[in-house]
Amino acid sequence: MSLFITFEGIEGSGKSTQILLLAEKLKALNHAVIVTREPGGCPLADQIRHLLLQPDQGPMAPAAELFLYLAARAQHMQEIILPALEKNFIVLCDRFSDATTAYQGFARGIDPTFIGSLNHFATSGHRPDLTLLFELPAEEGLRRSRRRSHHAGTEIDRLERESLDFHRRVREGYLRLAAGEPDRFRTFDATLTVEEISAAVAAAVIPLLS
Amino acid sequence: MSLFITFEGIEGSGKSTQILLLAEKLKALNHAVIVTREPGGCPLADQIRHLLLQPDQGPMAPAAELFLYLAARAQHMQEIILPALEKNFIVLCDRFSDATTAYQGFARGIDPTFIGSLNHFATSGHRPDLTLLFELPAEEGLRRSRRRSHHAGTEIDRLERESLDFHRRVREGYLRLAAGEPDRFRTFDATLTVEEISAAVAAAVIPLLS
Repeated sequence: MSLFITFEGIEGSGKSTQILLLAEKLKALNHAVIVTREPGGCPLADQIRHLLLQPDQGPMAPAAELFLYLAARAQHMQEIILPALEKNFIVLCDRFSDATTAYQGFARGIDPTFIGSLNHFATSGHRPDLTLLFELPAEEGLRRSRRRSHHAGTEIDRLERESLDFHRRVREGYLRLAAGEPDRFRTFDATLTVEEISAAVAAAVIPLLS
Repeated sequence: MSLFITFEGIEGSGKSTQILLLAEKLKALNHAVIVTREPGGCPLADQIRHLLLQPDQGPMAPAAELFLYLAARAQHMQEIILPALEKNFIVLCDRFSDATTAYQGFARGIDPTFIGSLNHFATSGHRPDLTLLFELPAEEGLRRSRRRSHHAGTEIDRLERESLDFHRRVREGYLRLAAGEPDRFRTFDATLTVEEISAAVAAAVIPLLS
């Protein structure tokens, strides 16, 4: 059976680690799994990702940023996600529509309902079957994210440069989205250990596959 | 005084020649003029233009194409057009919102009213003061456009490869937009000579500046 699961959370919430751990567990159970991410996941969307994250870009118009995320999503959906679901893959996606509503909507101030209608158009109305939200305070998430960039020797990207207040609004937005759709969202305490969180994720997902 | 004039028409309608001729005439009358184009006109939008026109790209999702044009427009508006109008420049722009409604709406089949609401958001509700539509049959426009690419030794881009039917729907879309807003649109017969059209354009624009 196909299943479309998205992983959401603020910077440093550990979702990218958790997606790989869940993929391993599902593959060990002989499920066909695709791991992908947004923005990106296919050549055009990866080129758009590069435009979005380049740290040397001047001030980006909020509407331009929103439309770039949506363009990447529309292509990713048509080229990767829908064909994989049709072939009965389990698709695990690192960020999806909720990220746009949280970041460009709740944090940047664009009407979340308007963003909802654009997400609906970009995805032809397809929604994730399940969305896993990794939850921790914005201060802690940013601290982890900056430490990771420092250790990797990579430059801090445009989103990581945003203020603590911005990331607090993102977190708040995610919590409101989760509260509004309790059937689709599962929330995990991202301050626990990697192993504890991974066990909780597996316990939430694996029963859906039998 | 500032004035925002957009130039519209199907491929091969001669609008890019006419924009340069009008700019020369306005400069000769000591007006401050900026000539720009969409998609493009600023670094981010030029990068988006490159994504849109690359001929080796696989099938682009219609929603992705739409959102890329809108992203480029939003950035161009914020970075170039609005600041120029605030400094009392005359801004001449080769394609703008109407092109998206004609190409992605009337020709590609996305609801033109929905596109109208997205254009409104991308431009913060700013509209051209005047839109010049260069009108000719799609067959003739495509013939001219392909001859030009051939002479220039350039590759035929993604839009020029579209079918004749597609370009007929674009033309029809432009005519419907012009009929719907007769105060903003001026339509020119693009089968006349370059000099005849240029004289007609100047006669339509220059009286507005006194």
